[in-house]
Amino acid sequence: MPVEIERKFLVASDAWREGASGTMMKQGYLARDPDRTVRIRIAGENAFVTIKGRRSGLARDEFEYAIPLSDAEELLRLCLPPLIEKTRFIVLHAGNRWEVDEFYGDNAGLIVAELELPSEDAAFEKPSWLGAEVSDDPRYFNSRLAQHQFKDW
Amino acid sequence: MPVEIERKFLVASDAWREGASGTMMKQGYLARDPDRTVRIRIAGENAFVTIKGRRSGLARDEFEYAIPLSDAEELLRLCLPPLIEKTRFIVLHAGNRWEVDEFYGDNAGLIVAELELPSEDAAFEKPSWLGAEVSDDPRYFNSRLAQHQFKDW
Repeated sequence: MPVEIERKFLVASDAWREGASGTMMKQGYLARDPDRTVRIRIAGENAFVTIKGRRSGLARDEFEYAIPLSDAEELLRLCLPPLIEKTRFIVLHAGNRWEVDEFYGDNAGLIVAELELPSEDAAFEKPSWLGAEVSDDPRYFNSRLAQHQFKDW
Repeated sequence: MPVEIERKFLVASDAWREGASGTMMKQGYLARDPDRTVRIRIAGENAFVTIKGRRSGLARDEFEYAIPLSDAEELLRLCLPPLIEKTRFIVLHAGNRWEVDEFYGDNAGLIVAELELPSEDAAFEKPSWLGAEVSDDPRYFNSRLAQHQFKDW
């Protein structure tokens, strides 16, 4: 079974921006039930439907399928409003591939750094710009950000 | 946009069974919201994720993607219980391809015949075994049958 293990942090400075390359993303949810989320995402010129199960610790079942971009544009209209818009930056540090998401719209001001790991106890080197860990804080789940936006926290 | 236009009927006799070939299907729902249903279906050796929008008259937006059978088996475990099991029979009549679904489990006894049409007012010849039309009766939506099973009607 494909399992996603992910740790999530705030950022403490803008130092991550140097040399980072970004992709615009727009995503919405067909289901936001924590036991079974269904996400439609457009990432640059690519699009995906992604199904995730309930989190257990840092791990979560994840199934992702590429779909035509034109379908995704229609499917985003079927999603529960509002949509989430963000730029995902890839930042390489000490052999790790960090994903730094900068949110827009009603989540503007929020920047989150994520690292996918092979196991829950895998060691990794923290970049200097890394802030507090929020892996266990459900407010930072993207499925929740669509309902409870950063501007209302 | 892919749109599904479908008329749905009960059956008045078993005459449809002659020469019909059937495929076992098992399906469940990740979302049953009438505005956005997400279905996982195993049909014989094939599997699909299917997303449908709200019905408008007889029509409904429909997006279907083939997925690996092994993924579908995992995904059925993420679905809202209970699952629906049925055999789908293909019955050819006067140039039309009828789908006759015979349900099992807690929907046993229910048999429904469906015809997909190119437009809402398309003419078609009714087979002798066709019963009352139930296109507009939400009790017969498969997403509803998973919640309100035939045995409890």
